[in-house]
Order: sequence, then structure tokens, then C-alpha cells
Amino acid sequence: MINHPLISLNNTVFLRDDKLVILDRRRFPGELVEVLCSHYEDVARAIEDMAVQGAGDIAITAGYGLFLSACQLPANILSQTETAKAQLEQARNRLAQTRPTGFHLAALLKRLMDGLSGEPAVWADQILASLNKIVEQQQLRSELTAQWGETLLEDGDTVLSHCFPGAALPLMLYKALKNGKEVKLIATETRPYLQGARLTSWVASELGVNTTLITDNMVAHCMSRGMITSVFTAADRIALDGTVANKIGTLQIALLAQHYGIPVHILGYGPPDKNTTEGKDIPIEMRDPDEVRNFHGTRITGEQVEAIYPAFDLTPPQLIRSIITDRGIIKPNEISTYWSLPRA
Amino acid sequence: MINHPLISLNNTVFLRDDKLVILDRRRFPGELVEVLCSHYEDVARAIEDMAVQGAGDIAITAGYGLFLSACQLPANILSQTETAKAQLEQARNRLAQTRPTGFHLAALLKRLMDGLSGEPAVWADQILASLNKIVEQQQLRSELTAQWGETLLEDGDTVLSHCFPGAALPLMLYKALKNGKEVKLIATETRPYLQGARLTSWVASELGVNTTLITDNMVAHCMSRGMITSVFTAADRIALDGTVANKIGTLQIALLAQHYGIPVHILGYGPPDKNTTEGKDIPIEMRDPDEVRNFHGTRITGEQVEAIYPAFDLTPPQLIRSIITDRGIIKPNEISTYWSLPRA
Repeated sequence: MINHPLISLNNTVFLRDDKLVILDRRRFPGELVEVLCSHYEDVARAIEDMAVQGAGDIAITAGYGLFLSACQLPANILSQTETAKAQLEQARNRLAQTRPTGFHLAALLKRLMDGLSGEPAVWADQILASLNKIVEQQQLRSELTAQWGETLLEDGDTVLSHCFPGAALPLMLYKALKNGKEVKLIATETRPYLQGARLTSWVASELGVNTTLITDNMVAHCMSRGMITSVFTAADRIALDGTVANKIGTLQIALLAQHYGIPVHILGYGPPDKNTTEGKDIPIEMRDPDEVRNFHGTRITGEQVEAIYPAFDLTPPQLIRSIITDRGIIKPNEISTYWSLPRA
Repeated sequence: MINHPLISLNNTVFLRDDKLVILDRRRFPGELVEVLCSHYEDVARAIEDMAVQGAGDIAITAGYGLFLSACQLPANILSQTETAKAQLEQARNRLAQTRPTGFHLAALLKRLMDGLSGEPAVWADQILASLNKIVEQQQLRSELTAQWGETLLEDGDTVLSHCFPGAALPLMLYKALKNGKEVKLIATETRPYLQGARLTSWVASELGVNTTLITDNMVAHCMSRGMITSVFTAADRIALDGTVANKIGTLQIALLAQHYGIPVHILGYGPPDKNTTEGKDIPIEMRDPDEVRNFHGTRITGEQVEAIYPAFDLTPPQLIRSIITDRGIIKPNEISTYWSLPRA
């Protein structure tokens, strides 16, 4: 089995004693720093501050926040189901509001809440059992998505990726190498958080994939020189019309790929968001402008300079060749057929 | 008169006693650090290390390197013209090879060498007199280019710029504001050296221009939301076919602008390079990959990750609406008409 912190979420987000431990992804790969969460509020802040990232991973992390909250229900309300439920709802609302663009977060918290039954004293166990199942399902989805994705790769391909698209990307490249296809990776560094440099490049290179890091402004140049044969990114939310919300910069990569005739594939893992009909309904998270004006705590621009930090953008279905899920490869405008495909 | 270190080269590259002082642009705007050059080799290294940047500015800085070399001709060869010339040629060759993409560097050094006459003892004075004229000419060109550029701006416009396009950009925006046009600037940070954050955003905001900093991957998103009405960048070299070599990332901005119907204007200042017929003949400088793998001395990716750093890219004339020079606004495919236009 592949041994890397970023291949299984269990390695970077896990329970220890009565705390949730998050290995801080902003410090990878140079440092191993634990963010210790004793309370759901700590978990909410860790998600907001991006100690953990990726729509699926932050959803599960938030689930652990709800678990902590259930563990900490005071003894005197364990017999009062409604009061206990109200207390959990408070935690759920706080956690659900940390990041607005991905839909997995709210959906997973809803699933956990809807699954509660019986006495409040058993809820923590119920939540943990559900979470364990979800983590297992996520790992299976990564494996299956990687398998489907691998069928799109040919010997000699060089994949461009952006941000950290989760375990399916390195797994897909690893499987291709095992199948005798010489594939390479070019990763954009993905400012301002550098997930492409810190996470994607790191894990892929550790898995033996020839990996080249570029800055976000080198994409067209590399495409114009024939250095890229396909683009693979993830999605934080897929609307029913096939629009993909993903890390800021995905839209321009897709437009440039269209110009150069390079296919764009989305690692979708699971289903689209059944509650989002059109892409334009997806809220774009606007983060603190100081995350753009500062780097490593140093201000990189003048005192009077404004900044904006839209964390995501929307890529329309016309720019996407395929969405790769655990159930198969789907055209973006047919993404609703996901639910009619057989489970693996 | 406008008072800002980046409006006149005299403020950041100047002689003091027998040394050349370069205010380190990599440390702007937070720190004022002097790079002291006693010898042409120091000047060559400062140019290579990007303590100074911009095709015109590095050319003049290299000229000061040649001046230092002429000042330091040993007394015993001052009567031997050929030996002295050979010694200056050595300095010229070293300086000319520091940065290959811009053409001003080699052209200016040639002009200085060709202008030498009489005894070697007077060469330093000849070089300095020429340099003073060239600096004056560059300032006039910036003023005139800014004046022409301003005519392309309308009230309510928001200009996108990339890297630091020299004084003409902030001057153009400043003039527009003085003429009652409410214009704004969005500047890409321009990784890996952050000239857009450190230089362009800083000087424009200090001149009273409403300035917003974005990362290089936010361009398409901003264009898709109607936030940008025109693009203005500089050029490190313009070929006779109208191809523009400029900071890496210019090509993709131009492609995205074409997609969104936004005009791209190049601040060309002076003439194209009469010795470069086609864009494909322009060499693209490949810089040290560690400048991409490290930030502020910290490695931001895994040990086994490769990187590339093409410092420039080529934008074809079809993507460019106009090239703005001191002699007027010219269509890229007609850039050779520059020489037939009257001087201001």
C-alpha cells in the first residue's frame, strides 16, 4: 500500500485521546505541525484558516467537530433530547458556515444530524460510526476515480494540475506508471496558499512521478511549447448544469487549454450537488485580502494597496471534456446521469 | 513634479563617489537596501540577481558598469588604445550576457562602445555624457508614452497590468486622473519576483491611483466578472513582426483578454529591435529553478520536485491592439513604421 500522509485523510486528520489532531497542510512539506482541536470552535477555525483543505477533507474534518460537540454534551441535558439537539445544531451551523463554496461540508453535517436517533448519550458513537463509513467511502472513491482517470492517460502524457485535487490525482499517475505508461506531472504552485507546490508536487514526486513545479503565470507558455497534453483538477462543487467550482485559476487554465486544444478533465469523485441547478448559484468565497498582500507574514506591497481574494472560480461545462467519478467518466452536461450509473 | 523612487531611474540607480548605487527592487517597498557596485562584475551580478529590472533600466545600469570599467583602466595602458579597448570589451561582453531577452542591453552597450574616440583617458567622461543623454531620453520617452497611452483611457476604466512596465504606466494613470478620468488599476503580483506587488502596485497607489492587487491566477475570474476594461504591459523586446517578448504570464493574459474582448496595449517606449525579424528569434531566458522552488529563502515544495523558470514569453501580434511609443500609437504589424514617424 502507498505510504504518504496525503494519500489517506486518516494520516492528517485523526482523533487522539479526546482531541482532534490536524496536521497543518500550510506547513507541508517542510514541517510536521499538529493543530490540536478540543472543541468544535477550534475545528471551525482550523477549517477557516486552511490548516486542512479540499472540499471532501474539510467536510469530514467538520464532521469530527460535530463529534467533539456530541462528546461534550453536558451530563445534565443527556436526558433532554431537544435541548441536546439544539446544542448540536449550534455546532453544526458554526461548522457549516466556515467555507461556503464546497457543498460537501453542509451535506455531510446534514447527513450526520439526520442519522441521529435515540438518547443523546449515544449520538457521539453514532456520529463516529457514520464518519468512519464516510472516510472509508471517500478512500474507495479516490481509488475508483483514480482507476477511471488512469484510462484517459497515454504513454508519454504530461498532466497539468492545479491546487491539490486530492488523492485521486497522485494515485492515478502512480497507477499509470505501474501500467508502464511514462507519465509526468506539471503542477502550478497555486497562489496564495501554494497547495500545488506544498501538496500536489510533494506527494506526486514522492510516489515516483516526474514532477515539475511552475508559477501560475507559466501555463500558456508551457502549453504553447507543447509541454502539456491534458489538464486534471478537482471540483469543490459541481452544479447540475456541469459547471465546476474549483480553486481560483481553474477557469483560466481551462480557457487556455481550449485555445491550445488540450482536454480538461475534472476529478469529481462523487456526485454533483443535487441542490445546485446552475453554476451561477454557487457562492464564491471571498477570503481576507491580507492573505494576498502578505507572504509568510511579510507585506509584499504598498500600504495603500487594496487586494481581493476570491478563493474559487467557475468553469463552464463547454470547457470541460469529462468529469471522472467513482462510477465512471461522464460528460459535464450529462452529470445528472451519475445517480443512474451502477455503484462499483 | 512627481516624487517617487520608481518614476525616475536616477532615484534608484545612481553614482556616489566612485561607486554605483542600486536601490534593491527586490526589497521594495518594505526596505531601502543599497547594492553597492565598485566594479563592473558587481554590476553584472546585480543585474543577473534582479536588484534592478526592466529592459530599459537594466540597459542603463549596465552602461554604468561600462563606465566603472572605463574609470578603472590602469594608468599603464592609458596610452595603449587597443589594449584599453580590449579591456572595455571584456566588461561589455560580461555585462551584455547577463540577461538575453531584452535587446536594449546589448544595443546600449554597443552605442557606448561605438561612441568612444580619442585617448582612453577621456572614455569614462564620454560614456558618462552618453549615459546622461540616454537617461534623459528615457525619461522623455516615458512621459511621451504615458501621454499617448492616456488618450486610450476613458472615465471609469480599470486597467490590468502585469510585472512593472516602467514609469509610463503610473504616469499614464496619474495623467488620466488629472484629466478628470476616474481610472483604476488591477495589478497581478507577478510570481516569482512579485514585481506587480512590490513595484507597480506600490508606485501607482502612492500616486493616488485606486490599486488592487491580485494573484496571477485571478485574471480570468476578474475578466469574467467585467472588472477589467483594458490591459497595459511593457515589452522587453518587440520583433519587427510585432511579436512582444515580455514577463512570463503576458501571453496568457493576452489570450484571456482576447477571449473576453478586452484590448491589450503594449507600452513600447522606443522602437522595436531592428535586428529581430520574427518573434521566434527572441531567446527566452531560463532562470534558476530554485527561484520557483523557494520563497524568501524557504523551500515551498518537496525535495524531489523539479521546476522551470522561463522569465519571459512571446505574445503574437494578433493578440495586441496597439503598441504605444514616444512617437505615437502603432498597430503591432506596422511597428516598423516607428522610424518614419516624427520625433516629438
